[in-house]
Amino acid sequence: MLLCDIGNTSYHFYDGENQYKKSVLDFDPTSLKEKIYFISVNKALESLLLSLQNWINLSNFIDRSRYYESMGIDRVVALETTSNAVIVDAGSAITVDVVRDGLFEGGFIYPGLKAMHETYKRISPALNYEFNFDLDLENLAKNSQDAISYGVLKLLYSEVLSYELPVILTGGDASSLKRVFLEATVEDRLIFKGMQNIIEREL
Amino acid sequence: MLLCDIGNTSYHFYDGENQYKKSVLDFDPTSLKEKIYFISVNKALESLLLSLQNWINLSNFIDRSRYYESMGIDRVVALETTSNAVIVDAGSAITVDVVRDGLFEGGFIYPGLKAMHETYKRISPALNYEFNFDLDLENLAKNSQDAISYGVLKLLYSEVLSYELPVILTGGDASSLKRVFLEATVEDRLIFKGMQNIIEREL
Repeated sequence: MLLCDIGNTSYHFYDGENQYKKSVLDFDPTSLKEKIYFISVNKALESLLLSLQNWINLSNFIDRSRYYESMGIDRVVALETTSNAVIVDAGSAITVDVVRDGLFEGGFIYPGLKAMHETYKRISPALNYEFNFDLDLENLAKNSQDAISYGVLKLLYSEVLSYELPVILTGGDASSLKRVFLEATVEDRLIFKGMQNIIEREL
Repeated sequence: MLLCDIGNTSYHFYDGENQYKKSVLDFDPTSLKEKIYFISVNKALESLLLSLQNWINLSNFIDRSRYYESMGIDRVVALETTSNAVIVDAGSAITVDVVRDGLFEGGFIYPGLKAMHETYKRISPALNYEFNFDLDLENLAKNSQDAISYGVLKLLYSEVLSYELPVILTGGDASSLKRVFLEATVEDRLIFKGMQNIIEREL
């Protein structure tokens, strides 16, 4: 059984053991003959895959009424893995979603770490610093590198901790954020775990 | 008496009554014959003005040892206006500085509202929304516009309020932020007030 999380730039596969990515630009989905369970935030590809019988769209098996309409299916699937947590998915954007006693409370979207770095750099070359993940979160900053690191990391940290729930970090920058969110759990296969839950429950 | 706050793109004048700006690209500082008290974050212009006797650099009259080295002189001068406040200067960047019992505790730098809007837009066209300043700050977001608005505004709001000090808003986006920071005071001449304090005290 092959699972696939399709984004705007890549097919992200998981075969039960390994994860690997293929570019949407040159990967041919008809080259696979086995059954693939997928989700997709890529509307164009999703339509294309409708015609392939071995590509099964798991979004058809999810009750989306619990969530909001424009919410990405990847966020929804990640939320289906837990009934009490804050899920922080740190990719090109950082999505933060709260589920408490099995109910989705809502969330917010923060720019990703790379995007934030670019933003500061564009505002002024004087703000072109790497973030300091070893920042002292208890005290305001007294140099420029810490001042931007605090702006990005401390504000996110305080908000996420304010829900008083276990914190799950996922996405490409999960391990960077773990240096700040010491109490958090890193789950690098959260989406695939969610997809497996749906398959076990619905199919 | 003319006051001038020189930035990277403009000379910002205050004549005691009105404020006006001149572009650094085409304004000739030798065209003014009266005495001008100025501060500058623009290093090139600061050097040029050294040769003009009627342009008096107020940064020479400020004890900067209380602050950190790379901190912009505009932030320092704003802080000289108060002994107990959080100063939020919302321009191309949003600088937040805390002074308590006359002591500078530190600060942080957040991207400006325009920069944040651009950042979300660049991450995905699906995040190209204007911020909702009438956002419900008590509840997590359940639509995309509120999700990014919450990400920017609520996180800043919570952090600023956490110091439990009066909040002073200044800079070009002060009035936008006032819609969220209901308790705050907007001071659109804070830098000039700071400059006047220094002149009265030192000259």
